[in-house]
Amino acid sequence: MSCDYIQLANTGVQRLKPYEPGKPIEELQRELGIHDVIKLASNENPLGPSHKALDAARRALEQVHLYPDGAGFELKAALSERLRVDADRLVLGNGSNDVLELVARAYLQPGDEVVFSEYAFAVYPLVTLACSATPVRVESHLYGHDLAAMADAITERTRIVFLANPNNPTGTWFNDHALDAFLARVPEEVLVVLDEAYFEYVEESHYPDGLTRLRDHPNLVVTRTFSKIHGLAGLRVGYGVAHPQVADVLNRVRQPFNVNIPALAAAQAALDDHDHIENSKGENAAGLAQLAEGLAELNLEQIPSVANFVTFDCGGDALPVYEALLRDGVIVRPLGGYGLPNHLRVTIGTAPENERFLKALGRAMAR
Amino acid sequence: MSCDYIQLANTGVQRLKPYEPGKPIEELQRELGIHDVIKLASNENPLGPSHKALDAARRALEQVHLYPDGAGFELKAALSERLRVDADRLVLGNGSNDVLELVARAYLQPGDEVVFSEYAFAVYPLVTLACSATPVRVESHLYGHDLAAMADAITERTRIVFLANPNNPTGTWFNDHALDAFLARVPEEVLVVLDEAYFEYVEESHYPDGLTRLRDHPNLVVTRTFSKIHGLAGLRVGYGVAHPQVADVLNRVRQPFNVNIPALAAAQAALDDHDHIENSKGENAAGLAQLAEGLAELNLEQIPSVANFVTFDCGGDALPVYEALLRDGVIVRPLGGYGLPNHLRVTIGTAPENERFLKALGRAMAR
Repeated sequence: MSCDYIQLANTGVQRLKPYEPGKPIEELQRELGIHDVIKLASNENPLGPSHKALDAARRALEQVHLYPDGAGFELKAALSERLRVDADRLVLGNGSNDVLELVARAYLQPGDEVVFSEYAFAVYPLVTLACSATPVRVESHLYGHDLAAMADAITERTRIVFLANPNNPTGTWFNDHALDAFLARVPEEVLVVLDEAYFEYVEESHYPDGLTRLRDHPNLVVTRTFSKIHGLAGLRVGYGVAHPQVADVLNRVRQPFNVNIPALAAAQAALDDHDHIENSKGENAAGLAQLAEGLAELNLEQIPSVANFVTFDCGGDALPVYEALLRDGVIVRPLGGYGLPNHLRVTIGTAPENERFLKALGRAMAR
Repeated sequence: MSCDYIQLANTGVQRLKPYEPGKPIEELQRELGIHDVIKLASNENPLGPSHKALDAARRALEQVHLYPDGAGFELKAALSERLRVDADRLVLGNGSNDVLELVARAYLQPGDEVVFSEYAFAVYPLVTLACSATPVRVESHLYGHDLAAMADAITERTRIVFLANPNNPTGTWFNDHALDAFLARVPEEVLVVLDEAYFEYVEESHYPDGLTRLRDHPNLVVTRTFSKIHGLAGLRVGYGVAHPQVADVLNRVRQPFNVNIPALAAAQAALDDHDHIENSKGENAAGLAQLAEGLAELNLEQIPSVANFVTFDCGGDALPVYEALLRDGVIVRPLGGYGLPNHLRVTIGTAPENERFLKALGRAMAR
């Protein structure tokens, strides 16, 4: 064979390093032969899924020999009512990851620029490179978005800006004034994708709801997910809300059956399970306080977080700490790939999980 | 607003018309207020899913608050053993649609050419246009692929050829000699995607197994699906088998969690349910004979099919026939979008479903 099929791929694709997910529990069990593993690595809901969602998914399985409703009619109707947006502004995704990718694929050409923050979600550069566009990473301010610097970074080649509020993996957020000042500076032909995957967890009084900015900013795309507070990461459902023309374009590009049958049914049921949402918020607020206190006791510096995870500084290379935790059956997330080699990100678990993590961390740090 | 967000999209995307799926049962019930609808419109398995697959999916739902295993370790191990291919040749997709799209996205740049047959699967031009590449449609021979003409159509700009064997929506197939003669003519730097979504149904003695050609043709990508004989269309699982370099590239571009938790579990269980596969084949062969006979009795010309559907000529505009069938509670697929305005495609159902369809068709044709 004389042909190299890596070299034959598009230039951006050749530079792609696949996303590194949190280590699956089964993988750790296979590798180390240990059991009783807890995973605090992927910002999942430690309470599990809503039982209403689970029941709906179970019932929907009876129909899995049929294709899903590609239009997602019923889930969109429910979202439209709940969010008070017209259904023609909605696009459903196989996780909000899918929606982020659709915006890139529909609007990026090779050489276009995409602006996002240092330490922002890894998927933004991935979807940019997959389109052979140019990632423009703007230096962060105290681990968060420097929105003024991001607006300055917009050029004539910029087609998309990705914002995460709160940001993953740092847990930082920006307020309504900062968002509005930023949006006022962005030209109408540059799309602003506001990733609100952790929206439901945030309690701060000046935290902005992106949906209320859609009317004044037709270039705004707000994305949300059922993977976090709704506890349905394993079913892959997210959505975008945008100007009807943008939603039309994204719906043309998406795969006709991108969200599957149990996922559509579960998401719709989860939306109505207010008890599960409130319990999850309460559990998270308590766990956030528990972890903040425990990390402070270990004299570890942490980035203030409003989401369902905390990122902290190990005071040196975090990898040995990560590995010691693994051997103790606790999976967290190393952040070397984000340029934070001394930091680890831990998802807020149940109270006993948080305690187990803190004890294991104490042992790891004492080594 | 001065900006047009359709015009702002990539040129190919502007030309995209979304895939038109078969009408969902619920939609027809909503629109016409009728019940007892049968859908023979999307080549689904009328026996439903394998019960083993359903049980596995049900059990897997308990874990849906966790992300899926993005590497698909266990399903890939099972496929590797069953298909006798190394796991590093495999890429899993959210349906084989996902794999078709990944090949396009990884290897196409604006202006590149993609060759496929007239009357071939609608997704080939869709994924081509989504990449702003140029679709090259080669005239068919007796509704099937004219492989010699397709080889002739390859130019220096051609990056991908899509082949479907059997082809949807016509049910035609090509034999091992024709495939090998074609592959011998394709330059190594042109990828050949051989879509075998209906592979398991075909009984013809000279029907080629694409996997056996992988060793000699590193440019070959074979795609298969769990949506057809395995009866899991609603869960969205397919896969591609290719040279390890090509699989590596596709795995870089795919979404990290493109196949969800119940889908991974169900697919693995379905692979082992030989009884369900054999029953489905038997039911299909009987139904194919039943429909062939019934259509012949109605003096309707049909395209000989080796798959789980039959396409027939209504002898005039098929749309009134399609609509009369709808009012009778039977959903089939009109093919105007394929350039076959006089044809309808009917999926092979159970014996009573086939009979109900034939009677309704008799009434519709008599009008």
